[in-house]
Amino acid sequence: MTLTDDSPILVPAGLRNVVVTSTELGDVRGGEGFCHYRQYSAVELARTRTFEDVWFLFLEGRLPTAREAAGFAEEVAPLRTLPDELRDALPVIAAAGSPLQGLRTSLSLLAGLRDIAPLWDADPATRRADALLVAAITPTLLAALHRLRSGQEPLEPRAELSTAANWLHMVTGEVPEADRVSAIERYLVATVDHGFAASTFTARVVASTGADLISAVIAALGAFSGPLHGGAPDRALAGLDEIGSPDRIDAWVRHKVAAGERIMGFGHAVYRTDDPRSVMLREVALALGGDLAGFAAAVEAGVTGALAELKPERRLYPNVEFYAGVVMELCGVPRTMFTPTFAVSRIVGWSAHVLEQATERRIIRPVARYVGPPAPQPVPVAQAGGAR
Amino acid sequence: MTLTDDSPILVPAGLRNVVVTSTELGDVRGGEGFCHYRQYSAVELARTRTFEDVWFLFLEGRLPTAREAAGFAEEVAPLRTLPDELRDALPVIAAAGSPLQGLRTSLSLLAGLRDIAPLWDADPATRRADALLVAAITPTLLAALHRLRSGQEPLEPRAELSTAANWLHMVTGEVPEADRVSAIERYLVATVDHGFAASTFTARVVASTGADLISAVIAALGAFSGPLHGGAPDRALAGLDEIGSPDRIDAWVRHKVAAGERIMGFGHAVYRTDDPRSVMLREVALALGGDLAGFAAAVEAGVTGALAELKPERRLYPNVEFYAGVVMELCGVPRTMFTPTFAVSRIVGWSAHVLEQATERRIIRPVARYVGPPAPQPVPVAQAGGAR
Repeated sequence: MTLTDDSPILVPAGLRNVVVTSTELGDVRGGEGFCHYRQYSAVELARTRTFEDVWFLFLEGRLPTAREAAGFAEEVAPLRTLPDELRDALPVIAAAGSPLQGLRTSLSLLAGLRDIAPLWDADPATRRADALLVAAITPTLLAALHRLRSGQEPLEPRAELSTAANWLHMVTGEVPEADRVSAIERYLVATVDHGFAASTFTARVVASTGADLISAVIAALGAFSGPLHGGAPDRALAGLDEIGSPDRIDAWVRHKVAAGERIMGFGHAVYRTDDPRSVMLREVALALGGDLAGFAAAVEAGVTGALAELKPERRLYPNVEFYAGVVMELCGVPRTMFTPTFAVSRIVGWSAHVLEQATERRIIRPVARYVGPPAPQPVPVAQAGGAR
Repeated sequence: MTLTDDSPILVPAGLRNVVVTSTELGDVRGGEGFCHYRQYSAVELARTRTFEDVWFLFLEGRLPTAREAAGFAEEVAPLRTLPDELRDALPVIAAAGSPLQGLRTSLSLLAGLRDIAPLWDADPATRRADALLVAAITPTLLAALHRLRSGQEPLEPRAELSTAANWLHMVTGEVPEADRVSAIERYLVATVDHGFAASTFTARVVASTGADLISAVIAALGAFSGPLHGGAPDRALAGLDEIGSPDRIDAWVRHKVAAGERIMGFGHAVYRTDDPRSVMLREVALALGGDLAGFAAAVEAGVTGALAELKPERRLYPNVEFYAGVVMELCGVPRTMFTPTFAVSRIVGWSAHVLEQATERRIIRPVARYVGPPAPQPVPVAQAGGAR
């Protein structure tokens, strides 16, 4: 239904199912278990393409040729290095808060240091350069903040490594093995974008005012930190720890359901089928091997089986968090860096949405319905001492 | 019209006229030239009440008694003081960017330093305390950043001064005269809230994820910085400078209109009448006296007269920016601090909206319509060198 009447339009709370704009960047079809970036399946991209190829796809609207891919890697590599002013400020920033809070603080500093222009004053080439810079520097900042917080010296980014390999290198301090790089790369590709999540929508609202790209990304990071946003793979893994061993799965689920508690890692706001990203990450986890992957698969079977019996009206599937946590644990990423790893990929999606929103030049400004006491009422005279 | 169907709902771009939620905090009726905070006229409050009374009104839902007003002042005063870690970091932050960018960076640090809890984990008393802290510390941060940037030592906030007097003191370095305090206080009261501006909506989207109050306010600051958000009183004043003298008004307007340029300080997205806040600020400006106030009134008359002739189809009125700039200039506020002064009041409004949104516990998550190439299409095989 299209409404263009000038009278106020009431929509369902939370804007659920409300189409606020068009996008060429991708779509999620929850009923079909389908998530695509532009015209391609996100999962198929994750299985066959590099993170940089997909980053290029978001920015340029098509997959790169081999030559373009090489040029893109060369363009991105130097952007990973921190400016000196930022490097010097990091110890104070790291001491003050979590890596994600520190990323926000650092990007806010960067906006001033690099004099990032409002989207409306910036030409498309400048906007693209800002988008590349923000996504390229984010892994360096997050890894440096992590290492400072754990009493280690930050490591320099290595130009010859891919984003995925460089991330594992800077976080763990080791040059990672190929199977770990491949596993993390698949996770990164699969989580670049996912429709109009609250963080993505936030970035677009800020961008609609013509503000700069960093302001929009910082705003998105705020929404991203919210417990309802989802995407905290460490919570799902904490569930596995709580269960402890395969024989306790069934009792654990029943206790959770009886207590009315949410089972982290299962169920999603959008999908009514298997989350295709979760299916792929299960394969990745099992290929990495080890007890944890097998245990996770047993928990998946146990939880979905028990839930099918206890809550037959709505089948719950593992979401992307469930195996993401397992994959990251198997790749040696510390748990405090699970959600930051998610941010490394999602910031590419946010930036692309900001660039798309910037072409619209129309502010997003809804209205609210006033439901307080009838207005206007005369202002009571202030009592002595309370007035100006 | 109320739509609750589960099928996608298309709404006008920019969510214009789309009612996204209910609020008890206030309303703007553009057709009637009416803006109220809860049940009271914002302008009447500005004429008769202190900024602290109105701050209390937003937080508590009613105006304070004299005793409550005194208690509130005592509660707020110590919150103005900067924690040492933040004070120590300010020189680096001030050097990196504008006072508003620096405010954002500083609040991001503060969120970690004070371990501000997600809204969903915080009880109402904690949320209220966070809202008070953020609004109370903002003037101190902005004034300190301004002074550091202009090579001066920051001044300590003074507990015995009102927010308005303390703001002028910390920015100008002088204990301000009563008529200036009163003028700035009226401006502050008149600009606390104004419906679902993009910044306010941004704060509510972030709050809807359950994130912490500072994340929501930082996001709002990003939208606030956008050129389309409005509220940059220095731009309107730059127009006065450009005109220079009363005899040039008419030629200036005609040139602007012929060149298709926007006339800053005139017209508003919502009002189709005089902006009641602008009418009040004109009185305030004329009461302060001096050539600038008279010149501004002459420009208002000249511009509206010429526009009525040149664009009879839509009458344009001065908006709140126009006389706000004049009032701030007459009160000795430097132009770089005009928009930060606006932030000092609006942050009270944002915080109140965040507290209201936090009671809803429902995420704001719209959808977008995919308009790219038909999907899914098979992912092309990567060329040698471009593949993983």
